[in-house]
Amino acid sequence: MNWRLLVEYDGTDFEGWQLQPGVRTVQGALEDAFARLVGRRVVVYGAGRTDAGVHAVGQVAHVHAETRHAPDVLLRALNALLPRDVAVRTLAPAPEDFDARRDARSKLYVYRIWTGATRSPLHERWSHALAAPLDLPALRAGAAPLLGTHDFSSFRAAGSRGRTSVRTLTRIEAGGGLGGELSLAFEGSGFLRHMVRNLVGTLLEVARGRRPPDWISEVLAARDRRVAGPTAPARGLTLMRVDY
Amino acid sequence: MNWRLLVEYDGTDFEGWQLQPGVRTVQGALEDAFARLVGRRVVVYGAGRTDAGVHAVGQVAHVHAETRHAPDVLLRALNALLPRDVAVRTLAPAPEDFDARRDARSKLYVYRIWTGATRSPLHERWSHALAAPLDLPALRAGAAPLLGTHDFSSFRAAGSRGRTSVRTLTRIEAGGGLGGELSLAFEGSGFLRHMVRNLVGTLLEVARGRRPPDWISEVLAARDRRVAGPTAPARGLTLMRVDY
Repeated sequence: MNWRLLVEYDGTDFEGWQLQPGVRTVQGALEDAFARLVGRRVVVYGAGRTDAGVHAVGQVAHVHAETRHAPDVLLRALNALLPRDVAVRTLAPAPEDFDARRDARSKLYVYRIWTGATRSPLHERWSHALAAPLDLPALRAGAAPLLGTHDFSSFRAAGSRGRTSVRTLTRIEAGGGLGGELSLAFEGSGFLRHMVRNLVGTLLEVARGRRPPDWISEVLAARDRRVAGPTAPARGLTLMRVDY
Repeated sequence: MNWRLLVEYDGTDFEGWQLQPGVRTVQGALEDAFARLVGRRVVVYGAGRTDAGVHAVGQVAHVHAETRHAPDVLLRALNALLPRDVAVRTLAPAPEDFDARRDARSKLYVYRIWTGATRSPLHERWSHALAAPLDLPALRAGAAPLLGTHDFSSFRAAGSRGRTSVRTLTRIEAGGGLGGELSLAFEGSGFLRHMVRNLVGTLLEVARGRRPPDWISEVLAARDRRVAGPTAPARGLTLMRVDY
């Protein structure tokens, strides 16, 4: 049986999604729980391999596992075995060839920035705190040329490899308020390693007035990670949804 | 100088507000930070002595402390010294006789309940998870007779003492949705020890259909803690605001 899972986690105390020996990862926690329930090791494949410290409310995964348990029983048993900071929200039988990673058409990430003058203990677990004045119209103007299909090499983690750096961004929105929580939403066909955090770090250079809005087009055209802004901290990033 | 502070904290890892030797408390953390800045021990008085595990976004406190620092410098220095899970949001000189506890006219608490069918790692730090079906109209009907001035002995922590158990509740509201986060707001002139959590635990007996709405009036009239419902868990409770 191929199972499709919707997974939520507080990434603060995980070394990211991907299984690594000897460290605490989301994939590792899920595979440990499945192993106890089905009596053998299985591999849980996630739609997005989120970095250490990144959160998810809508991660999707698939796992081939044989069990005599009904889906609702399996769901409750998994959540009883999983640590408090990760849960399977829904679980359902999927077509045998469903692949959470390959079949994903679109992903939505939100990056939260706490813009209050003083830090906020109730926000900082999920937000990057930045008390600097931010120019939202400039940020929005800078973001506009990123929409569409481009080679996003400038926003790809240094040293990461892969066939292509071409991705399609369908939506970038800045919502919420200054003096409180500001949310930046990024939706697209797929994302390179660190791409959202590098986009945020670069857009914040514009929002802080250190660079003009049209600098973003220059960065995009350069296809060179060294010209973009810094990588924004992982704590602010949440994978909200994966569409198929 | 008498300083008025607005204090926010994630109560998860604190043994409550009130200073106790050898344990981690919010008052203790604030007094330690002040001691380092003003060179001597001072007492920080809070408007509400929240229990272990209870959070605050709008706790108010006062402290008599002499310092040559300007208020904004003092604020930054305090937040640099305080642990991550507590912060002073604002700080201002207050009249010499301002007393955060005695002068409070009204307090607003919110109790959050996560009602999703499966637990939510991103909600559980601030919410009590309860997957049972809840009848909100019944909860609201049960809550209505609690409004106004009453002897709330039935909702007072067993064994706690004090001159009077008479308090005035000016507002009880249930907001948000089932299947997601439900918020219960309680506003009043003052609250007895565990009063909000005991009100929530009792109202949930009605919302779960274990008792009829008019049972709440009986509990109130009994003036006996033993007839009310259980004390709801601390993690769901947040002190939102204190008015003067």
